[in-house]
Amino acid sequence: MADGVLFEFLHMEMVSHVFKDQQSTNGEMNNKDRAVCTSVLEGMGFRVGQGLIERFTRDSPSFKDELDIMKFICKDFWTQVFRRQVDNLRTNHQGTYVLQDNKFVLLTQLSSGKQYLDDAPKYLAYSCGVIRGALSSLGLDSVVTAEVSLMPSCKFQVVIQKL
Amino acid sequence: MADGVLFEFLHMEMVSHVFKDQQSTNGEMNNKDRAVCTSVLEGMGFRVGQGLIERFTRDSPSFKDELDIMKFICKDFWTQVFRRQVDNLRTNHQGTYVLQDNKFVLLTQLSSGKQYLDDAPKYLAYSCGVIRGALSSLGLDSVVTAEVSLMPSCKFQVVIQKL
Repeated sequence: MADGVLFEFLHMEMVSHVFKDQQSTNGEMNNKDRAVCTSVLEGMGFRVGQGLIERFTRDSPSFKDELDIMKFICKDFWTQVFRRQVDNLRTNHQGTYVLQDNKFVLLTQLSSGKQYLDDAPKYLAYSCGVIRGALSSLGLDSVVTAEVSLMPSCKFQVVIQKL
Repeated sequence: MADGVLFEFLHMEMVSHVFKDQQSTNGEMNNKDRAVCTSVLEGMGFRVGQGLIERFTRDSPSFKDELDIMKFICKDFWTQVFRRQVDNLRTNHQGTYVLQDNKFVLLTQLSSGKQYLDDAPKYLAYSCGVIRGALSSLGLDSVVTAEVSLMPSCKFQVVIQKL
């Protein structure tokens, strides 16, 4: 519990630091500045995801296919990192996966009011990176994006990049 | 366990981000640049420490004096935040306290070789801030510094600022 709070507080601070930093360099934030911040946070998440997966899969059997890896991400990995399982996993069986978490841990600290909906993407960039980093270490290149329509519910779209 | 790792990984990323950021703005790092980075990290820790103490003391009885507060920090707070108790608390009974942790959680990831000794202060700034923030919310203004002579052992010096 305490560890969880510790992580969440540090995450909030980090998001706010990265955005303030970019703002003080360039004055007003435009879309390009926001993209820079998102990319910084995503990159941090990516490296953390790589580190985490090494720990978590040390004693795991190997995976039989892509879907097997995605199921592991949705169950074991999600539980360890985001403290619950994904509520719903959908796929088109062609490399696109939609992971829905109805109560995403890093959004529950924000008010569920609509006024924070615009801010939500800031708080998801790091997590998108974590997922992409984890998949990368399991041999899957991917593009991961997130979408929020009703807080604190969140959908992550994972598109596996075929070689 | 996973939550702990999550926090430690994010902390490492954050330290490295803050330092890289300052470096890319100013080229070579000098002492002033290092002080700026330390202060950024300390500030983030301060706000997190304030947030944490609010959670942890919600159901705690009030404290009878300064020493009582320091004991709480060394036992309950330290266990929740840094996963073990402080090994040794010393005081001159005039507002100066030395908290020694022989296996400080944020240093155990670093090699214990001497080559990292110079780097250790980077990884302690955030924690100094956390302690200062916690004390501040308990009504004590302080200056908190850290000193490492043999990794992963660490001494935090807390000097309470009397009004």
